[in-house]
Parts: sequence; structure tokens; C-alpha cells
Amino acid sequence: MQQAEIGLIGLGVMGSNLALNIAENGYRVAVWNRTTERTSRFVETAGALADMIVPCETLEDLVAAIRPPRPIILMVQAGAAVDEQIAALRPLLSADDILIDAGNANFRDTMRRFSELDGSSLTFIGMGVSGGEEGARHGPSIMVGGTRASWLRVKAVLTAISAKYQDAPCVAWLGTDGAGHFVKTIHNGIEYADMQMIAEIYGMLRDGARLDTDAMARLFERWNGGRLESYLIEITAKVLTEADPATGRPMVDVIVDSAGQKGTGRWAVIEAQMMGVPATAIEAAVAARGLSALMAERGAAEALYGTPTKGFERAEGRNAIDDLELALFAGKIAAYAQGFAVMEAASKEFDWGLPMATIARIWRAGCIIRSQFLDTIAEAFEDGDVANLLAAPRFVDLMKESVPALRRTVARAALAGIPVPALSAALAYFDAYRAARGTANLIQAQRDFFGAHGFERIDASGAHHGPWGG
Amino acid sequence: MQQAEIGLIGLGVMGSNLALNIAENGYRVAVWNRTTERTSRFVETAGALADMIVPCETLEDLVAAIRPPRPIILMVQAGAAVDEQIAALRPLLSADDILIDAGNANFRDTMRRFSELDGSSLTFIGMGVSGGEEGARHGPSIMVGGTRASWLRVKAVLTAISAKYQDAPCVAWLGTDGAGHFVKTIHNGIEYADMQMIAEIYGMLRDGARLDTDAMARLFERWNGGRLESYLIEITAKVLTEADPATGRPMVDVIVDSAGQKGTGRWAVIEAQMMGVPATAIEAAVAARGLSALMAERGAAEALYGTPTKGFERAEGRNAIDDLELALFAGKIAAYAQGFAVMEAASKEFDWGLPMATIARIWRAGCIIRSQFLDTIAEAFEDGDVANLLAAPRFVDLMKESVPALRRTVARAALAGIPVPALSAALAYFDAYRAARGTANLIQAQRDFFGAHGFERIDASGAHHGPWGG
Repeated sequence: MQQAEIGLIGLGVMGSNLALNIAENGYRVAVWNRTTERTSRFVETAGALADMIVPCETLEDLVAAIRPPRPIILMVQAGAAVDEQIAALRPLLSADDILIDAGNANFRDTMRRFSELDGSSLTFIGMGVSGGEEGARHGPSIMVGGTRASWLRVKAVLTAISAKYQDAPCVAWLGTDGAGHFVKTIHNGIEYADMQMIAEIYGMLRDGARLDTDAMARLFERWNGGRLESYLIEITAKVLTEADPATGRPMVDVIVDSAGQKGTGRWAVIEAQMMGVPATAIEAAVAARGLSALMAERGAAEALYGTPTKGFERAEGRNAIDDLELALFAGKIAAYAQGFAVMEAASKEFDWGLPMATIARIWRAGCIIRSQFLDTIAEAFEDGDVANLLAAPRFVDLMKESVPALRRTVARAALAGIPVPALSAALAYFDAYRAARGTANLIQAQRDFFGAHGFERIDASGAHHGPWGG
Repeated sequence: MQQAEIGLIGLGVMGSNLALNIAENGYRVAVWNRTTERTSRFVETAGALADMIVPCETLEDLVAAIRPPRPIILMVQAGAAVDEQIAALRPLLSADDILIDAGNANFRDTMRRFSELDGSSLTFIGMGVSGGEEGARHGPSIMVGGTRASWLRVKAVLTAISAKYQDAPCVAWLGTDGAGHFVKTIHNGIEYADMQMIAEIYGMLRDGARLDTDAMARLFERWNGGRLESYLIEITAKVLTEADPATGRPMVDVIVDSAGQKGTGRWAVIEAQMMGVPATAIEAAVAARGLSALMAERGAAEALYGTPTKGFERAEGRNAIDDLELALFAGKIAAYAQGFAVMEAASKEFDWGLPMATIARIWRAGCIIRSQFLDTIAEAFEDGDVANLLAAPRFVDLMKESVPALRRTVARAALAGIPVPALSAALAYFDAYRAARGTANLIQAQRDFFGAHGFERIDASGAHHGPWGG
């Protein structure tokens, strides 16, 4: 029998779908699962694709079934399970075999695993896979980190199974060791910000403009035909159209307003903090989920403070709604600017040379944040080096056009008592970023006053102290 | 010769000042420094206090000079130096001797060191010391974490050297292992927020109301006589009054607007994120320092976007200024509510039983954030258990009174292009916290749509899915 092109360990939903995707694209895949029963069931339900699947009962069988050098995808639970799987495989593998962690790993674990294998003849790939179950089955966005040689071994398979945008595969080698998982982490942080800002706009429509869900759905549908065109806007329109089969009420109205999270948004914020790069819109989005979970506290607080006098003034209502499309767009630009700035800093710190335009392009299909807007980002980076997206010529024009609507929206929200944490963080970021003269001079004066920390002068070099010293 | 009551290692500015403080309070202190020359110089310059100082040339001498069980304060650079010092001391110490890290340690290092010594007969105290050089010399605020027994051994000395507020010592045992250093970390996070919000108000006065620094100084001085009474408001007034001796211009105007940071604010944000507790005003303050450092980028961005049409409309100017005192107060309440919520969560997670009222009281003198307002916080916690300061009856009244001014201030800043990241984060936090029904229901609908994550219903228990599935 012909040897398999690649191996895959872990036949949960993601792993099964990825294996079917590989098989469907004409590559033979050897699979193994901790419980053999699941392996058998998987092959039974694989239909015509079963021909391209090599079920293995032992790790030895798996290794023997793959053409060397052997790439083996690990799709097991992030954390200790990955380390255990690596330990179990190591004695069985040969020179140049490639272990590929396709789970949601923290990139710092990926860095560690990469360096632990560095002395051996094996190599390690940390691979971010975006698009959920559906993406895994029919084409995810794939972010690869590892050596160039190992990438070349798996390039053909990954290219085949990846999502395509206008025939371009949404997969790329982004750099060594943790590059792929890091970019996936920032992708998720951006996704949090995208979703939170949409939720804030929804809050303005529901509590400010007092639209019903059908009217909101029509708005989002219309916006999806313009500059906001994206998967998330599209599904927001769909979600808002649905009625609850049980009660007939709008579906969103019967869903509890407490959002879960799986941790990757939080990692994005923590890494931004470690590098000292402002990522306030992403932080606000992650914090908003944390706050949403405090159901009982929020209920008690509303009882203490009273329900806010929500609702825009009648004369303002129409203008307020008209502003929301551009406000959301301006907020989105600022949030993406933060995410890409964090990647820029990490790229320097870890010496990855992240290809920013490519990153935007491989997010163009297969993943949750896919949008027309990513083309503009790719073009901005292709135009030439930019320190920050906000400084890229095409974004300067877009911001100039859209930020006035964001200003009015944040101001209305503040006055009406509607929380817009991510949108207001985005505006404050923009306003601080484009101010040549900020207010940190006062902070430096205070620090020198109480701690003799010293400060720089605008007219002389070196460290100076104020006249307040003992 | 009488034995010393306590030992101290590391005669940098902080260590020297702490040793002089101990000596001045009538306790004999044995000191050792890596370079003996510094030890000699220290004693020579100690004047009359030299009688109470026992200079030691070796660690053996130091240990022999202290009354057992021996408490030894380490005031060396945070990080590896602490571990090296502990390793050097361990073989010389006896049962129940106490190593006290008084540096700016990350509490996770303190936890590790505590547990590393746990098997031995020695104990470890992690001690947060606030108030800078001046505080160390004449009375700092001291936050102690360690075993109760080790606290009782050092209680008298620490009480003597601590700052006093109306005769009450600003020192307390806060809990075991990392409790002291954790609380110090949050203290610093709150300090960042306090300073950033003052800087934002300064920005509103400078760029919005276009006041000169003398007029600003008078305002801060007036505010210092009211609800904002605090060290930071006091020194802000002082700083704004000073002229630059070299140019005669207002001192703040010749200081570069790029603020430094030493990392503890960042730790506060990271810990808040790890526990999923919203701390957005603190995050915004830390991020603002990061942004302030991007001088060249900010200059380039202003050239691209133009100088904002700053300045409030004339008719608004007076109202805008009048609102700032209450706006700052409301923002401060929200920021402190976040900081205390982070401590509450940590107290549960690490089983510390942090005494919240006591924490507020020991910050009342000796440290940078000392203020009248801390009395109100202590009283709020003494009134009874509260989930969040925003839900404490006396803060409900204060917020109701002050939040309208914060709304108008954030709205004006948004429209005028003046960045107020911390103040707007504080407002969004308040508005989200007091909303019984938020907008995370939409986020849950999206997550279920694209990832089948499931959601809870308002009218039934268990996990549910929307009608959009397969």
C-alpha cells in the first residue's frame, strides 16, 4: 500500500474534520487515536474518503505508515497532553520527522517545545488553525511557525486543505518557532475586539435608538454590502433575524448576556502588556466578557443605581443611527492597528520577520474575522513600511472620513449611559496616537517630584530634575 | 554588645534609608553590603544614629549580630539577586529565622520563594514598601505577607518605622506568602490610574479650556481642599506652579511628554487578566505610558492628521471646567473599584483573606496614593461585605452625584479630540457594571452560530443552541 503523506493524532471533532479535509484533497492520511474504537468509528463514517485514510492501532503502526520525513499533526488538548504525546512519539521517530501542534497552544509553550526538540533531529511546527469545525473540514486559515525546511515538507498538503480566497490559499509560513501560534493569538484578540464593537453598536441600536431586531438585522445586512463587509457582520444580521422556536421571540432576546471565553483573547492582552504595546480596544473587549459574567452583581447594581435613562433624544435618533456604520469602521481600524502593532513588536522581539501583508491575506478566508477590510490592510503594508496602520496613507484617508462619526457615537453613548468600552478605547487610542504633544510631561513631573526619577527636557539632552527637589 | 533586633542587607538608597529609620526608632540594626566600603561609608554618614547600627563585614558576622529568631531584610535588586542572597544565607541560619524581601518583587516570585523555604525551618516574608526614598527614611506604608508567627516577630519594629496616620501605623499583616507583594502590585496599578486620570484632566484644561499653568495650579489647589484631597493632587498643584529656572517657562512645558515605567503597573494588569477581572482603567493608564513613549510616531501621525481642532466652544468653557472635579472623582472611584475587585478575586484564588478595610487604612499615609478618599473606602468595607465598591451604599451616593459630570467630560473630550482613555474606561466600566441586561447575548449568539459553543437561555437551564445550526 502507498504510504501516507501525513499523520494525524487525535480524532476529536477538529482532528476528524482536518483528516477528512486532507483525504478529500487527495492526500493519504494515517490516523491514530488514544481509543482505537474512535479510530474505527471515524473510518466507518468517512464514506468514500475511507480509501485515503490509514487507521492505525498503535503509534508504531502510525509511524510506519507515513512517508519519511514524517509530518504528524497533533490535534489533542492544549497543555500537558501535547507534551505527553511528544514524549511518546520521540523514541519512534527518525531524523527530520516533524511534529505539528495544530491545537490552540500558548505560543510560549510552542517556543519551549521547539527549543526542547532543537537538539534532536526532529523538528517542531506550531500551527494556528482558524475557522472552527467548519473551517477544519472545508478550509481553515492556517498560520505556520517552524523551520523553513519543515514548512517545505508540509507546504503542499497544507496549501491543498487551506481556505482559498480568489484562488489564493490562506496558509503561510510566518516565521520560526512560536510565530504561527503567536499570530493566531493576536487573531483571536482582534476577533474579541471585532465582536465586542459589534455588540456595542447593537447596544446603541437596542437601548439608544430602540430599534427592534428586524430593523437591526436590515441595518447589518445593508452594512455588509459596504465597507464593513465581513463574516461577523453577515452572521450578526442572520442571528438578529432568527426567532426562538420555543417562544417566537427574537432569538437574541432569550439568550443570557454572559459571554464565555477560552483564554486566547486574554493571552493576546498579556503579551501586549509584556511588550508595552497599547492594545486597549482588545483589552476592553476581553474585560467586557469578564464583566458580562458578573450577572448577579450587575443585577444588584442596576437595582441600586436605577435603570439608566436610555434612549437618544428623538431629534438625534436618525443621526445617531446614521453614524454607527462609520463609527464601527473607525473603531475597527484602531483595533486592528493595535493588533498589528503588537505583532510588529513581537516580530522584532523574537526575530520572526512576520510578513504583515501575508498575515492579512491568509485571514481573508476560512477564519472568523475574514473581511473585505483585510485587503485594505494587506495593500497598506504592500504600499511600504508603516510604523502603525493609522499612519498608512490609505488608512489616514479612511480614518479622516470615519472618525467624526466615532466621536459623536462615543459622546452620545457617554451621555446616554450606554457602555461602549472598546469603541471609546479605540477613539482614545487614535486621539493619543495622533497627538505630537501628549500629557505625560505632567506624569514625568510628578514622578520626579515624589521619586526623583528624572525627566528629559524638550530643549536639552540627558536626565534633568525639577526645582522642587529637597 | 547588645544584639541587633533585625538585620538588613543592601545599602542602596532604599536600604540605607530603611536602616536609618529603624535606628532612629530605637532598634539596633545589623547591616551588610556586598561591598564593605559602602557599609563603612554608610556608618560614617549616619551621625548620632551610628550607635544603633552594627556594621558587618561578612554574612557570618551579620547572622551572629542578630537576636534569634533572626529577621533579615533583603533590600537588593528584584530578581536573581534575591535568590542568590537567599542561597548564600540559608546555610548560616537557624530554625525560625526570617528572610524578608522588601524589594519590588513580582508576587509570583514571592510565592515560589515562600514555598521553596517551606520545607526548611526558615520562613519568608514578602513585604511591599511604598513611599519611595522619603518614605523609607521617615515612614513608609508597609504591606506584609508571610506566616503569622514571623509577622509577630517583626511587628514591633515594622510598626515603629511605618508611616502614621492619626497615630495609627500604616503597616499590616495581610496574609500568607505573596499577599504583601500582591497588594503592593495593585497599589501601583491604582497609582498609575490615579496619575493618568490627573494627566487627562490636565489635558482638558490645557487643550480644551486653554488655561495657563497658574490657573491650573489654583484649580488643583482648590480641589485639594475638597473631596479630591490627596498627595497626588497636592503635588500636581505644586508642580504646575513651578517655573523652569533655565528658561522661565512653566516647568511642565519643558518636560518631554514620554513617561517611564518600572513594570509593576503592568504586573497588575496581567494578574487582572489572568483572573478575568476587568481592570480597564488601570490597563488604559499603563497603555497610555506605553503610547507616550512613541514620540516619533506620534509626531508623524499629527503631521498626517493635522492638529486637532482642540478647544471647547466658548459657551461651554466654564461648564467644562466646573465638571472636571467631579469627573475626576467619579473616575477615581471606578478605578479603585477595579483595583479592589482584583484584590478580592486574588484573595479568594490564593486563600489570603485580604482585609480590605485595613488595606485602605495602611495606604492612608506614607504612600503615593494617600488620600482622604481612602477613609471612605475603609468605611465602605467596614459597613459590611460588598461585592464591589460601586455597590457600597456610600459609593452609590457619591457616584450618583459625580457620574453626570464624568459623562459630560468624556463626551466633550470625544468631540474635541482630547484623549481621555482612563476616564472613558472608567465610565464604560460603570455603565456596564450597573446594567442588569448587557449585550453579551449577541456575542453568545455569534459564538453559537460559528462555533456551536452553546448558550444559556433566560427562561430555562442548561446549554442551548440557536435555530441557525446545520
